[in-house]
Amino acid sequence: MAERLQDLTTPCLILDRQRLARNIARMNDRIARLGVALRPHVKTCKSIEVSRLAAAGHSGAIAVSTLAEAQFFALAGFTDILYAVGIVPSKLPDVAALNAGGDSIKVVLDDPRTARELARWGVRNGVQIPALIEIDSDGRRAGLDPDDPAVIEAASTLADSPGTRFLGVMTHAGASYDCRTTDAIRDMAAQEARAVVAAAENLAGAGLPCTIVSVGSTPTALFADALDGITEVRAGVYMFFDLFQVGLGVCGIDDIAVSVLATVIGHNPRLNRLIVDAGALALSQDRATAGQITDQGYGLVCDAQTVAPIHGMTVQSVNQEHGLVTMASGKLDFDRFSIGSQLRILPNHACMTAASHQAYHVVEAPGGPATEEWPRCGGW
Amino acid sequence: MAERLQDLTTPCLILDRQRLARNIARMNDRIARLGVALRPHVKTCKSIEVSRLAAAGHSGAIAVSTLAEAQFFALAGFTDILYAVGIVPSKLPDVAALNAGGDSIKVVLDDPRTARELARWGVRNGVQIPALIEIDSDGRRAGLDPDDPAVIEAASTLADSPGTRFLGVMTHAGASYDCRTTDAIRDMAAQEARAVVAAAENLAGAGLPCTIVSVGSTPTALFADALDGITEVRAGVYMFFDLFQVGLGVCGIDDIAVSVLATVIGHNPRLNRLIVDAGALALSQDRATAGQITDQGYGLVCDAQTVAPIHGMTVQSVNQEHGLVTMASGKLDFDRFSIGSQLRILPNHACMTAASHQAYHVVEAPGGPATEEWPRCGGW
Repeated sequence: MAERLQDLTTPCLILDRQRLARNIARMNDRIARLGVALRPHVKTCKSIEVSRLAAAGHSGAIAVSTLAEAQFFALAGFTDILYAVGIVPSKLPDVAALNAGGDSIKVVLDDPRTARELARWGVRNGVQIPALIEIDSDGRRAGLDPDDPAVIEAASTLADSPGTRFLGVMTHAGASYDCRTTDAIRDMAAQEARAVVAAAENLAGAGLPCTIVSVGSTPTALFADALDGITEVRAGVYMFFDLFQVGLGVCGIDDIAVSVLATVIGHNPRLNRLIVDAGALALSQDRATAGQITDQGYGLVCDAQTVAPIHGMTVQSVNQEHGLVTMASGKLDFDRFSIGSQLRILPNHACMTAASHQAYHVVEAPGGPATEEWPRCGGW
Repeated sequence: MAERLQDLTTPCLILDRQRLARNIARMNDRIARLGVALRPHVKTCKSIEVSRLAAAGHSGAIAVSTLAEAQFFALAGFTDILYAVGIVPSKLPDVAALNAGGDSIKVVLDDPRTARELARWGVRNGVQIPALIEIDSDGRRAGLDPDDPAVIEAASTLADSPGTRFLGVMTHAGASYDCRTTDAIRDMAAQEARAVVAAAENLAGAGLPCTIVSVGSTPTALFADALDGITEVRAGVYMFFDLFQVGLGVCGIDDIAVSVLATVIGHNPRLNRLIVDAGALALSQDRATAGQITDQGYGLVCDAQTVAPIHGMTVQSVNQEHGLVTMASGKLDFDRFSIGSQLRILPNHACMTAASHQAYHVVEAPGGPATEEWPRCGGW
């Protein structure tokens, strides 16, 4: 069922299997040198096939960000799934249903009241919910401070109730995305690890040892010097990379494994602009590179066959199904980019761009053909 | 199968049937007074049920923005579908397949070369592709200038070939979204109509009469004074409205028919912030209100039962599955917004917010219960 790129209905998502394999190998190498376990975060790929490649050679553990992903991956046979977004009681029936045959789904919380509600719910329903405490390592989103007495209070509740099981602590240094240098990322990785190790030490001192001490983001995973006291690293976007990660200095443009195949649907010589059929939905409205040194608009425009960037061409603006392509300087060659010709667009943020697409068209070489179609999980 | 809001898995999309009906009635009233036909643009709703309500009492014509929508609506029995995004030859096999039993799908182009390719393709495949010429009425996106000789050149090609049929002209004044007053919208509606009527007059003068002379955007449809020479209006977001349309002065907050039901999953008293489980995917990253007088962040936070805005609370930032909610001033009442409690979030841009969701939960009254689930079409 190999399909030439020119026979695919655009816009669609292309996944380069060689780049994917290289990116996964790079992370595996880092993880082996750090001497920790890897728990791939599959919210980026939302694909069974990609996740199996990322998990190969590891324990098979993954992290997810929605119940829909938890269900999708549990059904495919993944048995160690960390649902890494704060749990609420209303989601426990779904978690318990998935755990009926074992305890594949582990949940996360950062409030002793939530711990008590989980414990009560577990007891009332005759199940045991495995849970971790989220620690704040960068003051940006969720989690308890490592030294907050609420950490031990929540962990005690989880450990003491037959309705819950206390597994450990986790954190995510989203601030690594604001770093300007790889040295700053290295420092952030140390800060991320320090916070969660401090929490784990406090807990051990209180007689509550952590089985799991989990950190992660792609930048910190790739640049951490050492991860003493950490048991596992979570990372997701490293499988695909994107323009934002290029801007961070974490990877090169040639490492980006996903791109949107688009077709030129119009010319606007007066505005020196092409119109393509990949707009706000197919590319996403993510503008993560807007704050970086190189603003890539809504995506960097590349040759459809070689995926080489075409000097200075980016998607300048988007409507729902229209992308407006311009050059930084100079006149567009409208004959080269005739109506009906194809382009490839590299994403600012792979997680967001992939999200509107229902499948990956997998290519073995940049110019295709697409040899497989790998479905993605959507919704909640 | 009525479900209480508190029993729904969040994040999810809620559709208020009464507001929907009121919004549709308002547009129907406008259209009746203008004496033109209505072709609802269903790229906003992507729902059979919503589109049937919007098309009721009209000819049944609709506009779509993707081939996937064309297929979805054709399968549901819609027989007059304008695919309102520039056609390319590679999409003709799908169009022709849908038209095998009649000619439900009409396409749009703005280049004489595309007209010639369509004509050749139609002849070669023994079919006749019905097509319109896109006219530029605001200098912003696609279309030919009304007086460009290419309009008559393209129309002649379509009319003369047995492989194509020339139906008329269409335009979309996206610039109406930049208007600051309803007077400015009224002027833009006149400008939109003037452009396409001028093109139609030129074509008639050249012996190429237009069966369809089509304009449309929700703001121009609602504020046009008169539409002499126009046969039909296309509009879509009026069914739901959103915060951007509120900012334009086109509707009130109480008219917004879609909202995202979210659950509070965390507290951050230090940053005076709630964390909800509706993030960049569930809300979209659309920041359309950023340029308006009232910047609504990533969405306006409302009471889950009454959908009344809670003074000054908006979603300040989003990660993939996290929304960070703050108040413009004052301290959040963390007891009121306990972990596990629900909120409703009104969208900046209904088309984009709805896009990640697979269905609408339809409520008869603001506080529920949800009595029906209406699926949405996704992908391309």
